[in-house]
Amino acid sequence: MEKIKVGVLGSTGMVGQNYLCLLENHPWFEVSYVAASPQSAGKKYEQAVEKRWHMQNDIPSSIKELVVGDANSLERALNECSFVFSALEMDKEKIKKLESRYAKHIPVVSNASAHRWTNDVPMLIPEINPEHLDIIKEQQKKHKFKGFIVVKPNCTLQSYTIPVGALIKSGYEVNKLVVTTMQALSGAGYPGVSSLDIIDNIVPYISGEEEKNEQEPLKIFGKIEDRKIVPKRIDISCHCNRVPVVDGHTACVSLQFGNKMPELEEIIQIWNNFKSVPQELELPTAPKQPIVYRAEIDRPQPIKDRDIERGMVVSVGRLRECNIFDIRFVALSHNTIRGAAGGAILTAELLYAKGYLK
Amino acid sequence: MEKIKVGVLGSTGMVGQNYLCLLENHPWFEVSYVAASPQSAGKKYEQAVEKRWHMQNDIPSSIKELVVGDANSLERALNECSFVFSALEMDKEKIKKLESRYAKHIPVVSNASAHRWTNDVPMLIPEINPEHLDIIKEQQKKHKFKGFIVVKPNCTLQSYTIPVGALIKSGYEVNKLVVTTMQALSGAGYPGVSSLDIIDNIVPYISGEEEKNEQEPLKIFGKIEDRKIVPKRIDISCHCNRVPVVDGHTACVSLQFGNKMPELEEIIQIWNNFKSVPQELELPTAPKQPIVYRAEIDRPQPIKDRDIERGMVVSVGRLRECNIFDIRFVALSHNTIRGAAGGAILTAELLYAKGYLK
Amino acid sequence: MEKIKVGVLGSTGMVGQNYLCLLENHPWFEVSYVAASPQSAGKKYEQAVEKRWHMQNDIPSSIKELVVGDANSLERALNECSFVFSALEMDKEKIKKLESRYAKHIPVVSNASAHRWTNDVPMLIPEINPEHLDIIKEQQKKHKFKGFIVVKPNCTLQSYTIPVGALIKSGYEVNKLVVTTMQALSGAGYPGVSSLDIIDNIVPYISGEEEKNEQEPLKIFGKIEDRKIVPKRIDISCHCNRVPVVDGHTACVSLQFGNKMPELEEIIQIWNNFKSVPQELELPTAPKQPIVYRAEIDRPQPIKDRDIERGMVVSVGRLRECNIFDIRFVALSHNTIRGAAGGAILTAELLYAKGYLK
Amino acid sequence: MEKIKVGVLGSTGMVGQNYLCLLENHPWFEVSYVAASPQSAGKKYEQAVEKRWHMQNDIPSSIKELVVGDANSLERALNECSFVFSALEMDKEKIKKLESRYAKHIPVVSNASAHRWTNDVPMLIPEINPEHLDIIKEQQKKHKFKGFIVVKPNCTLQSYTIPVGALIKSGYEVNKLVVTTMQALSGAGYPGVSSLDIIDNIVPYISGEEEKNEQEPLKIFGKIEDRKIVPKRIDISCHCNRVPVVDGHTACVSLQFGNKMPELEEIIQIWNNFKSVPQELELPTAPKQPIVYRAEIDRPQPIKDRDIERGMVVSVGRLRECNIFDIRFVALSHNTIRGAAGGAILTAELLYAKGYLK
Repeated sequence: MEKIKVGVLGSTGMVGQNYLCLLENHPWFEVSYVAASPQSAGKKYEQAVEKRWHMQNDIPSSIKELVVGDANSLERALNECSFVFSALEMDKEKIKKLESRYAKHIPVVSNASAHRWTNDVPMLIPEINPEHLDIIKEQQKKHKFKGFIVVKPNCTLQSYTIPVGALIKSGYEVNKLVVTTMQALSGAGYPGVSSLDIIDNIVPYISGEEEKNEQEPLKIFGKIEDRKIVPKRIDISCHCNRVPVVDGHTACVSLQFGNKMPELEEIIQIWNNFKSVPQELELPTAPKQPIVYRAEIDRPQPIKDRDIERGMVVSVGRLRECNIFDIRFVALSHNTIRGAAGGAILTAELLYAKGYLK
Repeated sequence: MEKIKVGVLGSTGMVGQNYLCLLENHPWFEVSYVAASPQSAGKKYEQAVEKRWHMQNDIPSSIKELVVGDANSLERALNECSFVFSALEMDKEKIKKLESRYAKHIPVVSNASAHRWTNDVPMLIPEINPEHLDIIKEQQKKHKFKGFIVVKPNCTLQSYTIPVGALIKSGYEVNKLVVTTMQALSGAGYPGVSSLDIIDNIVPYISGEEEKNEQEPLKIFGKIEDRKIVPKRIDISCHCNRVPVVDGHTACVSLQFGNKMPELEEIIQIWNNFKSVPQELELPTAPKQPIVYRAEIDRPQPIKDRDIERGMVVSVGRLRECNIFDIRFVALSHNTIRGAAGGAILTAELLYAKGYLK
Repeated sequence: MEKIKVGVLGSTGMVGQNYLCLLENHPWFEVSYVAASPQSAGKKYEQAVEKRWHMQNDIPSSIKELVVGDANSLERALNECSFVFSALEMDKEKIKKLESRYAKHIPVVSNASAHRWTNDVPMLIPEINPEHLDIIKEQQKKHKFKGFIVVKPNCTLQSYTIPVGALIKSGYEVNKLVVTTMQALSGAGYPGVSSLDIIDNIVPYISGEEEKNEQEPLKIFGKIEDRKIVPKRIDISCHCNRVPVVDGHTACVSLQFGNKMPELEEIIQIWNNFKSVPQELELPTAPKQPIVYRAEIDRPQPIKDRDIERGMVVSVGRLRECNIFDIRFVALSHNTIRGAAGGAILTAELLYAKGYLK
Repeated sequence: MEKIKVGVLGSTGMVGQNYLCLLENHPWFEVSYVAASPQSAGKKYEQAVEKRWHMQNDIPSSIKELVVGDANSLERALNECSFVFSALEMDKEKIKKLESRYAKHIPVVSNASAHRWTNDVPMLIPEINPEHLDIIKEQQKKHKFKGFIVVKPNCTLQSYTIPVGALIKSGYEVNKLVVTTMQALSGAGYPGVSSLDIIDNIVPYISGEEEKNEQEPLKIFGKIEDRKIVPKRIDISCHCNRVPVVDGHTACVSLQFGNKMPELEEIIQIWNNFKSVPQELELPTAPKQPIVYRAEIDRPQPIKDRDIERGMVVSVGRLRECNIFDIRFVALSHNTIRGAAGGAILTAELLYAKGYLK
């Protein structure tokens, strides 16, 4: 099989670097084009990224020599790849327009938040709302796109929307969520958080994060009606904190069911047995068991659980009854893999398996 | 004025060490006796504590040469001091009995949890429930104590019970609290948490901590009725986490009022203007302003706020409306000072000012 | 090929756990027996190790159900395995005797320091002094051992003895070394260093470590003469520090040559091209390139370099002239892999390839 | 006594902030003027510094409302203060010229490295080379300055030049120093080092730092001859590392004496008894005992020793013989206090006591 050629927009930023690492040796996709800001354009990738390369592994050798393109100019992208991952970091309105310009011609799978609330753009967690891809045809029709735009949601919420989504899919209504997050430093990009701000410290605020956590799950759990994704009604209240952890976002969740409450034992079974479309299709990046329940009293923990199945698993633990709502638990996922580039690659794999990419 | 002689039981442990440092140069109290386990008894304090001394400052020079007594034997204590601070670390039942043995003769101000639920023992936060000292006379009568026992509550809850208590004292009913804590390492004593368990990590569990946070505030907010402290009815649900912070417990709180909800502006005023008995009496360890509201969007933070007014202030920030309950905020206090030895010393000062110590 | 059955003594300790993880799926060796202290004996491994399991991965499934033996009793070991890895943690004299008792019957590859200075016991870094295995026959003759003892040296010195050894093997005399180490926390075992002692701190002392670093390289670089390993004469002065790094020991080295000094360019070539017996024999755990010179100005760094080739590479950088000696450089190796269990497994592979294990 | 009015150039940077905190309530000096870049000029200090304020304490209330001046324009400085502290952060050549422009009119005490090698500018550690102030009159004559320039050296070297200087002042020649430093994050300013670069890591390189450590002590230990400061001849070889410590630079030192070597016991006495001009003059910021030798085997440590006598003490420990040179030891000082603003304020106090400031 010949691999599908893919471009990475915003390839010199931290999310872009993650894409390049995760796509090295991908069985279906091959990075044939890297784009960044005009300042980087024309340089070899290795020179363009230089001191900003911050992955544990070295730059993939197939990427080092690629000549970086200007992300604002579509010409090379349209010639050199079949679809693009967008890890653009610029003004939100500019990203919105630029991603739409690409979508006129080729598919865009985006990490950026710009199009998350465009109501004909699916915001996908492949295990939770794969059926939202059906909206793509409406999007294409409405905007006369040959390509399309699919986005992934905020990195933090993936830790708990997957276990909550598994409960909803098992027939349990979820009404209320109080969520307190303890978020990793890699979520702030590079250089991101100063060491002087976080060693021996926590910072109880992350700009924009609480709003995203309170709103995006509603669309993810929503339904397509009248050619639009109609958000579900759930009340979410979120406290977001930055903690001195390199990778892995943790969430403490109190949850109220809408109708009946399952036994705790049943919930654990639902989680451990949860499988969805990516597992059925055996997508290359899909974890075999997307949710792992840890029975140990003090888990999940970032250093012990973030890397399970190459960072694509959500680890859950400490399920117990809540004094105010129905249940409480702790959930953890790898923010730069499941929560960012890994989740987007899984989305692209789903798109490919469903025939949206050629 | 001649200083009152005080003993410290459990003086070689970490809380004991904190007492010794905080009592150095105290205007009213003077450490005249230090006790510990039988193994330490008979040694000079400096030798007994040796490599376990873990305070930032050196051992106070007035303490180094004191000969350590056996905490299980009362003789020296009764001869050499007027009251004792208990920082005993042993089996809870043993502490309970031992503190009662001391109380037969002299007052005991305790950090231990053993007597927290003894219903004629006041569990005191001096700014919140100073009137609970009235139960002492019942305690003395019932047990034929010449002394008495007063305890301080768990270190963590002090971060939020003080601001919550200030609201209750202003006439606002509080019905529900969802609290997620991020707790400092010094709360686990020394050596406590292994560095391998906490660098680049958080641990979402601390043994016994959630129960204490869910129950102790009820007694603190309770009323004396029929010669007992009758707990108040509040629903509290707590998630406790250990984070890589040396000192300072942080709590993210969602709160529901029972009757009416004050304006956010009014709440901030209640907090910043809150003063109570320790402030009126100008107790030496009392902070001038017990609650400081930080207007900055990203405060309170352990490294910036834990040491305000020598660690006796509760810092609060991020007051905002809650999507589910009424309000949300973040609170922080220094766990080994306000939450432990400092809080107990303030309690002793209150006891002295009220005539309970001579 | 049927795998060789191997036992692990001290299997519940941290080094023991490392062995079990690194030997999972080993192509030649299979853990058939695990031993520990009498308290653990008789329990299933999973129960015996319980809360002390501290590896990132879960206990290998093939190990969980093994019944732990008493390391002091040889019977099961002699029946159930062909040789043992010793990760014993007890009094040095006891280890010495116990390892000798095993060696009467079967080979012992040891992490313990007990036999490092026994002059007919080779202290091996497989790339540096593989010829020291020749002493084994003298050892067997003298002590009437059917088995034998081989030890690995201290974890720290492996970072710099490999690059220094590569220079010596290229014909350059080395006379003097001033070494300052910055050592990882995992080197102290678990629970090891208290978080309160090392967050926002360094500790400029590690018991026994400087002596080992000053003496062990002399034996490693020594020659077999008159049926003994005669140490080489090199002056080494070492400063050892504990730093808040989880894995990876770093050493800053100033080095004086004895005869002529090679060009810096030549040194880098010697290092990058260095290959030795383990590479020629293609031992399964041998890194393809044992020394990697990093050209970047600020490398090696623990988080970026410790895991290269599964933790078996020594990374070197910052080679430059010294104002006092001839050259200066920085070297780093993974202390629990190359410096401990990984190095010992490589030694066992060398023993097997050379016909010492059956 | 009326306080002397002082200006702070570069007042919004981290060193500038340190000056403002340390000068709050200073008995002799009073900050009457704050200057910064043209962008900040015209704003109130509180607004100008805004989110960049990074001290543990809040902005001193006397400073908040000061209107920031443009550091490039001398007018306000000359009207509003008697001398200036320079914490300028800009191109070195620009600093050099700008400080000279100020020196035409008023004294400049500078943290910047620009003038450190100007041979009529004293580079002062007040305890070590106070006699270098004599060069000021040559400087004034040569450049027709009404004011003058005095600089403080690099922050790191202060940890070991003070104990080394004490030995030299006691009549012992020092010939060679091999120094490995482990330097704190605050030395890199704010935001400085990214948390992603330093948590669980060390970085074995700091730009320009090794050169400064190898050269600046030579001038400090130098003598005034022929109206110039003539550097002393000492060979210094330095390895500089960044470690995850917030404050406090540590240095591991191997030292060779030139003539005879004192007994270790004598060295400790020299250090503990060391007093110099700042102590004799009882300067307000001078520590009573500038060098404290710690007898404990594992000291000095940043968290335990950096704050002794308000951060102005150099702590030394682990004195022992060296296998290659004569002695080895560990030294530590607070890099932003003794090593930066505190050291410069002590210098200004010396200048005042000696009649250079009015």
